[in-house]
Amino acid sequence: MGNPVKFYEKEVNKIENKFSVLFKGRKPKSLYEPCSFIMQSGGKRLRPFLVVISNYAVSGRLSGAYNAAAAVELLHNFTLVHDDIMDNADKRRGRPTLHIKYNLSTAILAGDNLIGLAYEYLLKDCKDNDKKVLQTFTKGMIEVCEGQSMDTDFESQKKVTIPEYDLMISKKTAALAEMCCSIGAQIGGGNNIEIKALADYGKYLGMAFQYQDDLLDIMGDETEFGKTVGGDLVAGKKTYLFLRALEKAKGPQKTALQKVIKNKGIRRNQVKKYREIYVDLGVLVDAQKEIKKYTDKALKSLNKLTNHEAKEILIWLANALIKRNK
Amino acid sequence: MGNPVKFYEKEVNKIENKFSVLFKGRKPKSLYEPCSFIMQSGGKRLRPFLVVISNYAVSGRLSGAYNAAAAVELLHNFTLVHDDIMDNADKRRGRPTLHIKYNLSTAILAGDNLIGLAYEYLLKDCKDNDKKVLQTFTKGMIEVCEGQSMDTDFESQKKVTIPEYDLMISKKTAALAEMCCSIGAQIGGGNNIEIKALADYGKYLGMAFQYQDDLLDIMGDETEFGKTVGGDLVAGKKTYLFLRALEKAKGPQKTALQKVIKNKGIRRNQVKKYREIYVDLGVLVDAQKEIKKYTDKALKSLNKLTNHEAKEILIWLANALIKRNK
Repeated sequence: MGNPVKFYEKEVNKIENKFSVLFKGRKPKSLYEPCSFIMQSGGKRLRPFLVVISNYAVSGRLSGAYNAAAAVELLHNFTLVHDDIMDNADKRRGRPTLHIKYNLSTAILAGDNLIGLAYEYLLKDCKDNDKKVLQTFTKGMIEVCEGQSMDTDFESQKKVTIPEYDLMISKKTAALAEMCCSIGAQIGGGNNIEIKALADYGKYLGMAFQYQDDLLDIMGDETEFGKTVGGDLVAGKKTYLFLRALEKAKGPQKTALQKVIKNKGIRRNQVKKYREIYVDLGVLVDAQKEIKKYTDKALKSLNKLTNHEAKEILIWLANALIKRNK
Repeated sequence: MGNPVKFYEKEVNKIENKFSVLFKGRKPKSLYEPCSFIMQSGGKRLRPFLVVISNYAVSGRLSGAYNAAAAVELLHNFTLVHDDIMDNADKRRGRPTLHIKYNLSTAILAGDNLIGLAYEYLLKDCKDNDKKVLQTFTKGMIEVCEGQSMDTDFESQKKVTIPEYDLMISKKTAALAEMCCSIGAQIGGGNNIEIKALADYGKYLGMAFQYQDDLLDIMGDETEFGKTVGGDLVAGKKTYLFLRALEKAKGPQKTALQKVIKNKGIRRNQVKKYREIYVDLGVLVDAQKEIKKYTDKALKSLNKLTNHEAKEILIWLANALIKRNK
């Protein structure tokens, strides 16, 4: 088996190889070139890896789930393409977003097609009785749409509670990670206890991941993280940090935070000031506690698994995500 | 059984009842209200009816396929919502399109969600071994995207051949009708010969339908058809009529047609002039021949079926579509 890092790298390499031939021989070029462009934009390939490792965790075999791994990355990339349109984003990982590189119509259609392709590849790894796999996948897809819609609602919603925020990220981020682990385990022939254990792992990992993302936005090193520090504040996003700060703040700090809502964001040169408010109110520490809470839940759910090698890798992965700086 | 018209009306009524509760209890409202708005915009409900009648044709029972019928209409409506964005269309059936009534983000996301819901409802009518149904549905979905992409390509493509046009509409229109009949027959437990017969019927019906649509655009009565007469010419669309005319024209008529490409359309007051060119070149008659050819093929494929009542309805439907004026 070797160490987890090597395992991860080897599997991601296999996944990348799979991705490189996904659209081979397909036409029209006007549709598949943009599909290919977005799929080749790199990233951690976390979701397909969750499929592969969950499959391995229940079956002990590394096979049979690479098409499903491709399916979840295709689905994830559909969300990126359409979200970038909605967010008016020009760049993604240093490259132009699809609606900028091509045009709006092409980006919408490429995103749509990625959904169809996701199902096509998922079906390749489904046995005749794998109706549940498809139901799980579809549930994940719908939840992502619902979560994105809630996220958009938050922009114009004056009051958002932390439970509402948690519900939104559980749909927008955690549902997909949960789905990845669940379908990996289902395709591997896991029993219901194993499927539930891995699905829970994915869900809690997804929650921790999103909290970590919110934290990195304000804490991250600009060059490492690849995004502008404080971008969420500049955009006036109602993240956990912001909502928690609003909950705790009094007096002038409260007024300053309310201004972010009123003005739908802040100027770049105000980021430092708001970071100080966050530090002062202890919300960065609160977020770290939440991350630890969710990570602990993810790790605890692994107790039900018997494959020790896979467990070791899943533990490493959860910890690596906490320690990440981008 | 009664007569085919009554059968159709009764089934469409059941289908409409099914549609009215599709999103019951779902949240967020920001997502499901637009989904509901587009699904309630009426129409012939041809695609869900094809599912129901194909199911009936092989099983002799009217049951078991109303969820699948909902699925194909959800999928069809996803294409309408996203196509309306791409076509910059303000209205659909006299009501505002989703991106006009709400906004771009809402329309994109509602369309995406309709795809997820389509799979959710389709899965409800799938037995454990219905993997093939899902593959057929997915193939239809991908072909629609490919067809739409080809259609967009045609806009900027100087030369488009009639076989290229046929390939485009076979994907953009016929593939979905083919898929409807195929999944209806599969869910009804039809054998391979029956499934193929009904799928072929759907495919040829879809081709005839699109040719008829092109013809109605230039021939239709403005009030009946619900669209501006000659809209395809105004928009500079490379329809069969236009491509066939270009193939046959010589001298000044050819020059006039080439101007449509060069100027990416014509003015409204020029429609009459171009209609005369079409009449003169006999392309309306050519289109009618094509419609007859495809309708005959659709009807011929029904020979393989044994349910005479269903066959009668399918024959009526094919003929009714030829005679339609909107």
